[in-house]
Amino acid sequence: MRIVITGGCGFLGRRLALLLLDKGTRLGAIDELVLFDNAPSALPLPDDKRVSVVTGDIADRDTVAKLIAPTGSSSRTDAVFHLAAIVSGQAEADTDLGYRVNLDGTRAVLDACRALGSRPRLVFASSLAVYGGALPPAVGDDTALTPQSSYGTQKAIGELLVNDYSRKGFVDGRALRLPTVVVRPGLPNRAASTFASSIIREPLCGRDAVCPVSPETVMALASPRRVVASLAHALDIPSEAIGQHRTLQLPGYSVSVGEMAEALRRAAGENAYKRIAWQPDATIQAIVGSWPRELHAPRAAALGFQPDAGIDEAVRFFIEDDLALQQALAG
Amino acid sequence: MRIVITGGCGFLGRRLALLLLDKGTRLGAIDELVLFDNAPSALPLPDDKRVSVVTGDIADRDTVAKLIAPTGSSSRTDAVFHLAAIVSGQAEADTDLGYRVNLDGTRAVLDACRALGSRPRLVFASSLAVYGGALPPAVGDDTALTPQSSYGTQKAIGELLVNDYSRKGFVDGRALRLPTVVVRPGLPNRAASTFASSIIREPLCGRDAVCPVSPETVMALASPRRVVASLAHALDIPSEAIGQHRTLQLPGYSVSVGEMAEALRRAAGENAYKRIAWQPDATIQAIVGSWPRELHAPRAAALGFQPDAGIDEAVRFFIEDDLALQQALAG
Repeated sequence: MRIVITGGCGFLGRRLALLLLDKGTRLGAIDELVLFDNAPSALPLPDDKRVSVVTGDIADRDTVAKLIAPTGSSSRTDAVFHLAAIVSGQAEADTDLGYRVNLDGTRAVLDACRALGSRPRLVFASSLAVYGGALPPAVGDDTALTPQSSYGTQKAIGELLVNDYSRKGFVDGRALRLPTVVVRPGLPNRAASTFASSIIREPLCGRDAVCPVSPETVMALASPRRVVASLAHALDIPSEAIGQHRTLQLPGYSVSVGEMAEALRRAAGENAYKRIAWQPDATIQAIVGSWPRELHAPRAAALGFQPDAGIDEAVRFFIEDDLALQQALAG
Repeated sequence: MRIVITGGCGFLGRRLALLLLDKGTRLGAIDELVLFDNAPSALPLPDDKRVSVVTGDIADRDTVAKLIAPTGSSSRTDAVFHLAAIVSGQAEADTDLGYRVNLDGTRAVLDACRALGSRPRLVFASSLAVYGGALPPAVGDDTALTPQSSYGTQKAIGELLVNDYSRKGFVDGRALRLPTVVVRPGLPNRAASTFASSIIREPLCGRDAVCPVSPETVMALASPRRVVASLAHALDIPSEAIGQHRTLQLPGYSVSVGEMAEALRRAAGENAYKRIAWQPDATIQAIVGSWPRELHAPRAAALGFQPDAGIDEAVRFFIEDDLALQQALAG
């Protein structure tokens, strides 16, 4: 079978590729794994002859049509992971770019899948950014969506499109609302949540980090290892097990930012802990404070999606999975 | 001031134009009222020098940009009513056309408004079709949206866009979820709800009608007169009174289809009543049965939106507002 991962050179896409090559899928043997992104990978890619990289513009319909159904090839795409996106801070600052990539790009992927006529499986990465406004104590599949960012708006629209295209039999879609992913490897980015990874990653790499929110701030998190396992699991679930509604809030664990710092101290000691500078930023505090503190995910749990054990496990995953590469790149 | 109504030659758009010309707005005197539609009006338009008609494709961005900001003109659009849409049955049957008109068209209108740079008021007509799936007894602003049609998906996306563009200060938007509009004048159309008007309108015009659902079926309705008054009222409300969330469920009244037929009997007698043939259609029963039976609209009520008194008033409105024209056109 042939699998396409858009955003395939991003940190989740690359790791998903490694997992799929290692563990396979329940759908069949993987013959081709195509990583699509807007630029070549900055990180080493799997050394595997099944893997190829295609670069291009996700919002260009011809590019995406050829990606999903290559001309002159007998290979047909069986499954697509659609992870490509402009992150929240950038989508907020550049409205046109955000809509182009996050909305037009998603429509291009959906229409290319539909053109296959074979109802391919599609896993779409949505986000907690779909929530906003006056939220109940715990959010989930049944929460009304009033996103407070262009990024959240575009992800909510993506969920609606995946549901409509699935209902009409154009794709066999699954839209997963990912918790905030901590600890992300790499560099700080333009997401308002970037500090939540920085306060653990940077001290572990011997660098200082700024925490712009109070220690009492509670967030709902998942580790990269867990999120990638959830994406792969979403592909494997039979269509009839999911039912008509194709959006799933993934489980996550709730933890205060103060407890995240304590987990760093437990893992790496007092000197690492002291590298966190607590410098409240009212703007970021307000944004993060508007996010859900607790996730209610009974449907996903019933379908076999798991949360992490907690922040100590998440720190350990980062040390096991990413720290060596992170230090090598920094050096 | 200059007002544009997309779908301005439709039955709601035309009647809205008449109301605006008659009653004015709280925003200022109307100098220009532009009715945009894909074809010239089949019904007589207001004989008023402020009114003009523009025909074109709502999904063509250049057309819409020129509509909202005419080149070489000093006239600037102050307010837009965006009513143009492909109806539910047709959007379901022709996926591409539905997305083109109902999604691309809405984006074209929003982007043309944004290009003005003056944050024009925008009133967007949404629909009960945004609801679907396992619904609570009464639906409203806080209900999670799982639409079961492409039309409902496109209207839900339109709401999200109006909210995002309003939050960013590009437009001063108001998205109204209209109840099912009964009694509609004109001909039956491709909406699954068309029977709800037909069973009253057709007998009043001396013709037979088929009712494809059981008398016990409960629907949430509003009259054309009430809906048009609500659209005009939505334009008048100060931005700060609405607050951040720009989508409003309008109030409606709940009535069984059997009671609708009784209202016809009260208004027009036994012979009219007997023109309704009760011929259950399982497909339409399932669609209509999936719609909300009761609307919960406290925010709209607090902002001064009113429901009709009930079905007898709605029948009377049709007789007063539409019956003569309806009979003239039929004859």
